[in-house]
Amino acid sequence: MKKALTIISGGIDSSTLLYKILNDRYEAYALTFIYGQKHSKEVEVAKDITSKLNIDHKVIDISSLQEILRSALTSPEIKIPEVSGELKHYDSLKFTVVPNRNSIFLSIAVGYAISIRVNHVFYAAHFSDRGVYPDCREEFVEAFNHASRLATDNPDLVIEAPFIKMSKSEIVSLGTKLGVPYELTWSCYKGGEKHCGVCSSCRERKRAFQDIGIPDPTVYER
Amino acid sequence: MKKALTIISGGIDSSTLLYKILNDRYEAYALTFIYGQKHSKEVEVAKDITSKLNIDHKVIDISSLQEILRSALTSPEIKIPEVSGELKHYDSLKFTVVPNRNSIFLSIAVGYAISIRVNHVFYAAHFSDRGVYPDCREEFVEAFNHASRLATDNPDLVIEAPFIKMSKSEIVSLGTKLGVPYELTWSCYKGGEKHCGVCSSCRERKRAFQDIGIPDPTVYER
Repeated sequence: MKKALTIISGGIDSSTLLYKILNDRYEAYALTFIYGQKHSKEVEVAKDITSKLNIDHKVIDISSLQEILRSALTSPEIKIPEVSGELKHYDSLKFTVVPNRNSIFLSIAVGYAISIRVNHVFYAAHFSDRGVYPDCREEFVEAFNHASRLATDNPDLVIEAPFIKMSKSEIVSLGTKLGVPYELTWSCYKGGEKHCGVCSSCRERKRAFQDIGIPDPTVYER
Repeated sequence: MKKALTIISGGIDSSTLLYKILNDRYEAYALTFIYGQKHSKEVEVAKDITSKLNIDHKVIDISSLQEILRSALTSPEIKIPEVSGELKHYDSLKFTVVPNRNSIFLSIAVGYAISIRVNHVFYAAHFSDRGVYPDCREEFVEAFNHASRLATDNPDLVIEAPFIKMSKSEIVSLGTKLGVPYELTWSCYKGGEKHCGVCSSCRERKRAFQDIGIPDPTVYER
């Protein structure tokens, strides 16, 4: 049985990815990072989902990085922006870039994969990410895969981002077929009791369900 | 003035690198990782050296990685091997590979560099590392630089390993000219009171001074 390690945040994309990997008959391992994100609620969600699926799940605390990585997602002095229009949506997303986040997460995931002899490392970058987050682009995945093979002397290592050409709606559509419990997943950057409904991540979540005509199980504050 | 961020461990190579960067007239920033290494004494040494030079120095604790990265340097259940001959030296080094370590360190360094608007990121891989540590090879540095530029959308980012074709003796020779306080630096993997003198790292340290005929200021146990 092929083994796969997935980075899971507890959001829609990575939760769907985990279900897809199991559906594709991989033996699955999961890895979640606490990196000082304000929405640390997603970590609890990731634990719930992996525990429901009875999957080997490591949660690694690297929140010390908060001190050196500047972003609205981690820096207490930068507020998570709210969104009102399309242009503003894109602008507000820019504040949420955590510099080099996926490179950091993938590097650690690769180190872990080598330690447990796993050759497939997955993460859930998707098509809508590519505008603002450069580490969610296809050319990055390819370049990083090449560098990681050299770093570990393992030509069989494969870093895969199977959603990289899919929209969030298409991911939700796939996940609905796979039985992903979207009511458990967490997207809101603010990390309150309920999804705020107005941050860039909540807006994307709402739209993903609306566009595909699938009922959204999320309770939003606004 | 050009700005440069260096990863410094407190050993001979990275300490010399820091002195070289200052000599090359960069405004220097330094970054040290606590990653669960048994020889955490090197971190105190790194602090002493950067403080002596009055350099902006961040020490980041990612020792949670110890749980997922298997190596004699970090795993309590794997003993640091002692060395008696040449073949055994190479074999014992293999135990000290921390999977993907430089990829992890560099990814974080790049994220920090972006946050403080620094384009030059240095690390002290040297020629003798290349046999056992794949993430100290020239082709890795090049591939990782390419991936990091894509990850951060910054074509000006340069990852440099200026010692990659130099032996440890050549580094010590350069550092002696630059006034590196080698009596402060730390190499021993065992991390005791004194340098043990018999681990692979102590052996390399001894040989570096011997080969170049420079007096070794280190006090060894054996």
